[in-house]
Amino acid sequence: MDLLKKKILDEGEVYEGNILKVDCFLNHQIDCVFLHEVGKEFHRLFKDEGVNKILTIEASGIAIGAFVAQEFGCPLVFAKKTKTKNIAGDVYTTQVESFTHGTTYDIMISRRFLGEGDRVLIVDDFLAIGNALRGLIQLVKDSGAELAGCGTVIEKGYQHGGDKLREEGIKVESLAIVESMNADTGEIVFR
Amino acid sequence: MDLLKKKILDEGEVYEGNILKVDCFLNHQIDCVFLHEVGKEFHRLFKDEGVNKILTIEASGIAIGAFVAQEFGCPLVFAKKTKTKNIAGDVYTTQVESFTHGTTYDIMISRRFLGEGDRVLIVDDFLAIGNALRGLIQLVKDSGAELAGCGTVIEKGYQHGGDKLREEGIKVESLAIVESMNADTGEIVFR
Repeated sequence: MDLLKKKILDEGEVYEGNILKVDCFLNHQIDCVFLHEVGKEFHRLFKDEGVNKILTIEASGIAIGAFVAQEFGCPLVFAKKTKTKNIAGDVYTTQVESFTHGTTYDIMISRRFLGEGDRVLIVDDFLAIGNALRGLIQLVKDSGAELAGCGTVIEKGYQHGGDKLREEGIKVESLAIVESMNADTGEIVFR
Repeated sequence: MDLLKKKILDEGEVYEGNILKVDCFLNHQIDCVFLHEVGKEFHRLFKDEGVNKILTIEASGIAIGAFVAQEFGCPLVFAKKTKTKNIAGDVYTTQVESFTHGTTYDIMISRRFLGEGDRVLIVDDFLAIGNALRGLIQLVKDSGAELAGCGTVIEKGYQHGGDKLREEGIKVESLAIVESMNADTGEIVFR
């Protein structure tokens, strides 16, 4: 997606420790006019897959998922990272190891919102090692729903999480794949 | 907003402990076709206020904020509840006491995304005592931005947080105000 690549080059910042900071348009301040285009692009890529539910994970995935769900005219469900008073005990849950934060956390969704008959498109902001996506895929499997595919906005190609998922036969579409980044020069090379 | 009241009556559930559960369409599973209408309604209510930024708080506010920002054609910024590696140290921060969870937490936004020249519409899913809104209002004040007003989807009128903010001269618009709820009968009465 050329518009995305342009935004990454114009507005993204590369930092030591494998960090591509795009919080000016994707995951802290959110450019919703741009995200509307992201939603349309994911719809174009997955419109023949029978998708009837979008699944993402709080917090950065929610705005993306909202615009994708708008295009498909279907509900969005987001997995929660912490147990709250307002979520019933009857949940699907699994563990996710966070590469970025060096921690492990539980994710969960209410059983009421995912199950047989659902064909699920998982979306998220970043795909690196793929741990968050694998956690969400596990929830889809546990629920008896079918996985239509995964759409991520930015894939860190050099971490190969996307390649491994594709090798397993999962349809994974990323709107930009970063092949290399250089924190000293700020250079970003796309696949 | 009649469509919202109908959804609350049809799909909402009342539980002991002052809980109105609307996680089937507002804050776990999200009806994005409906939220698009919510975005249009907030635009109608605040379109003459010179709004150029939408502010909300993770996680439940994000999808709402996204559709409001889409209507205004302006950015959405969401306050974060936890410090992450990917947010710079240069933040505005304040404390919020959670009535629902009985805890106090920090909220923060990067200084880069809020400041002089911004006219801010704050949006959120629920308004009860008003602690989360007051935290967000504090961040707006600290940043030197101007507050255009606050829009919440569901206000618990009997907790009077909205009334107090209005008495202070803040424009607060809620799309449905619940005047009373009965956990035994499930009855919900709107103001």
